[in-house]
Formats: sequence, C-alpha cells, structure tokens
Amino acid sequence: MTRDEALFQFLLRMGDNTLILGHRVSEWCGHAPVLEEDIALANTALDLIGQTQFWLGLAGEVEGQGRSADDLAFLRDAWDFRNLLLVELPNGDFGQTLMRQFLFDAFQSVLLGRLMTSSDARVAEIAAKASKEVAYHVERSADTVVGLGDGTAESHARMQAALNYLWPYVGEMFLGDAVDAAMAEAGIAPDPASLRADFNALVERVLSEATLGIPKGEFAHKGGRNGYMHTEHLGHLLATMQWLQRAYPGASW
Amino acid sequence: MTRDEALFQFLLRMGDNTLILGHRVSEWCGHAPVLEEDIALANTALDLIGQTQFWLGLAGEVEGQGRSADDLAFLRDAWDFRNLLLVELPNGDFGQTLMRQFLFDAFQSVLLGRLMTSSDARVAEIAAKASKEVAYHVERSADTVVGLGDGTAESHARMQAALNYLWPYVGEMFLGDAVDAAMAEAGIAPDPASLRADFNALVERVLSEATLGIPKGEFAHKGGRNGYMHTEHLGHLLATMQWLQRAYPGASW
Repeated sequence: MTRDEALFQFLLRMGDNTLILGHRVSEWCGHAPVLEEDIALANTALDLIGQTQFWLGLAGEVEGQGRSADDLAFLRDAWDFRNLLLVELPNGDFGQTLMRQFLFDAFQSVLLGRLMTSSDARVAEIAAKASKEVAYHVERSADTVVGLGDGTAESHARMQAALNYLWPYVGEMFLGDAVDAAMAEAGIAPDPASLRADFNALVERVLSEATLGIPKGEFAHKGGRNGYMHTEHLGHLLATMQWLQRAYPGASW
Repeated sequence: MTRDEALFQFLLRMGDNTLILGHRVSEWCGHAPVLEEDIALANTALDLIGQTQFWLGLAGEVEGQGRSADDLAFLRDAWDFRNLLLVELPNGDFGQTLMRQFLFDAFQSVLLGRLMTSSDARVAEIAAKASKEVAYHVERSADTVVGLGDGTAESHARMQAALNYLWPYVGEMFLGDAVDAAMAEAGIAPDPASLRADFNALVERVLSEATLGIPKGEFAHKGGRNGYMHTEHLGHLLATMQWLQRAYPGASW
C-alpha cells in the first residue's frame, strides 16, 4: 500500500462518516418534535454534507482516476464504503439520534483538533473549516443529551436505552489498522487509539452531567471503517440516497 | 386511447398490484412472528411475484415496444406505476399486514373470478392460473383476520386499528375510469364498481366473524391505479426493489 493509497482510504473514512451521518440526520427533516430542532437537524445534516464535499473531493483528487466527490458518494456500493457502523444505524427516536450525534461529534471534535496540524496542508485546511461547525454541533448535542438525560423519568430512560444500544459501536472509532499506521507515520493523521483519552474525558463529563451510566464491557462492533462488513442498514440507505443518480446516470442540475 | 392502450394500462394495474404487494410481503421474510407464518408469507410473496411475471409479460407484449416484464418492473419510476395505494402502504405490524392482505385477496378473488371469462383468452388464462393461488390466499388471510380479531383484547384492538387505518384505501378498488370503460366495452374486464357487492358480502361476513366493525364514512384515498399520485412510500419501496437493476444495468443471472 503506497502512502497515497492509504491517504485515499483515510479520506474515504472521513468523507463516508459525514456523508452517511448527514443522510441519516436529513431523514428527520420535517419530522422533528419541534420546529427549532427540525431546523437545527437539517442544518447539521447540511454541514455534514458540506464537509463530505471536501473530504471526498480530496479523495478523488488523491486517487487520480477522475472520480468526483459526487461519483464517490453516489456510484459506489455498500462494500466500498468506509464509514463507522455507528453512523449508518437507523435514527430510532429523537433521543437516540441525538445520542448518536453526540458520540460522533465528540469523536470528530477530538479528531479534527489533531488534523488541524496535519502534515498534509489540504487535510489541515479541511479540518480547520470543519472544526468550527463541529464545535457548534458538539455543544448542541451535548446540551440535548444533558437536557434529556437529566430530564423526566421517560426521557432519562430513553437516553439510557439509547446509550446502551449505541455504546458497543463506539469502540470501532479507535481501532487502528495499516491505513492508520501509514497516516501516523507520515504525520497526516493520528493513530486512532491516541484519541481515546480525550474522547473519554469529554464523554464521561457530559454523560455524568446527564446522569447517564456508561455500559460496562469492552465489546465493539466493527467492520465499517475497514470495509470488512457493514450492517444491513447501509444498503437500504444507499438505495434511497443513490436512487436519482442510478436511475438517471450523468444527470446534472 | 386505442383498445390496446387501454389494455396495456389495465395489465399494468394488475401486474403492479401483485408486484408491489409481493415486494411488501417479502419484507417479512425472516421477521414473521412464528416460522410457519414466515414461510406462508414468503410463499404468498412468491405467488404474487409469479403472477406479476404473467401480467407484466403480457403488458409488454401488448405495448409492442420490446419491454419485458423485468423492464416494466425495474425500470419504471413511481409516476408510471398503476397499483392501488393500499398495496404500497408500509407493513405495520403482523396484524396490519394480514388485514391488508385479506382486503386485497378478497378484491382479487372477486376480480379474478370475473376475468376467467374475459373475451381476451390471454387474460382469462392468467386469471385461471392466479385464481387457484388467490383462493388459498384469501382462505388463509381470512382465517388469520378472524383468529386475531376474535382473539385477545390486544389482538382485537390491533386488528380494529389496522382496519380503521386501511379501510379508506379500499374505495379506490372500485373507482372506474376511461380505461375500465374500454375494458368493459370490449368484454375484457368488468367495470370495477360491479365487483363491490361480492366484495362487500365476503368482507362483511369475515369481519363480522372476526368481531370487527367496518368504519363509517365513504372517504377513499385515490390516485394509485390511475397514476395521478402515489404515497411517499412507493418511491422508497422502488429505490430498494430496483437497486440492482439501476446499479448494474442489463445485469443477468
């Protein structure tokens, strides 16, 4: 694996995370419990799709085969996606959606902070742009997790159930492989395991304030970021997301 | 509209009903509450898809533009489908799925009985084949509606809720238009309104045995069989159903 091949994989991981989560969050548009949350979720989705444009745009450039961000987003199949399993899970209720958002935002904010000093100027530049948006996302999702976790008995129970369901998908964020080793070696991106302490500190503080208990156990679902195996949910998401470009190849606005 | 144009539309209505309901029912595969029901639902789905092959195959022949049943199933968009809105609705719980199945089976068994004496020998032949399967479907779905309707308080309440939800989609079955007038004129298919009395007799008998009350009111959702407007659910169903043929045009086994 050359350095550019590893960089391509790394960029797919970044772009696929924001693409798939962005699509999932966009599913709430018109369905959120109150108008302000509806708009906030739609804005979050748009931010994530905007970041995707940068990550997958650079991925196509690095790959050097003429694929655009659109080509990568809309013309790959499930087995070529490199997102964390966490982001492809169905939304569940509003609390579960926000819990997933918080867990991802926490990870992403720590990661982007490191990528801002990447040895690759293009990566550093995208990270700098994205981190401004993500700083706002994590503030907002953390507030909601606290508000609902430390809320009514019903909202507390739902948030704890959401955390119990989602927590086994957190470990995958920190499982490094040869791609990560090559990125760390080149100073482009950190070894994922090195992000865990900062992530834990942030997450434990917020979940504690939310009066929620982190589940015991080290089991982690994996296979998304290395493309080994996705959940059944990704294929359904892609079928919907890619419909237009599949039905009308080459369509443009 | 020539007679063959009307016949093409009529055949699309027949084939799209069985295609879309067949796909919906297939979604239960591996998820039904007990093994026997799982197998029964999968078999029902297969019967419906098999009937689709006949109806859409003949539709392509009548159209005379070289489109196969597969082309019609997998390469049309939502606005070109002519199925009843009833069959594209999400499955809901098991009871709702079986209530929809019963309402459709009851309609289909009455309709196929008439089509067996169609002036078009090809239509009569397909109807004769399909009616054997549908006679079994309606017996089975009626039994289930009675068993669950006249069951526990919980199952009764769910079946009544399902009937209340689905009943406003029944009226569309009997709304005739110029296509139906042309078919009736040619002796190919009956005026839909003429099926209502037999349908009502069958449905009222079964629902009464199931201790379920038919909702009051004549309101009927419509727009599916004439292609005026489908529900949002059809597009999502097609995105999943058509994925393979859209992503890999011309793929063959």
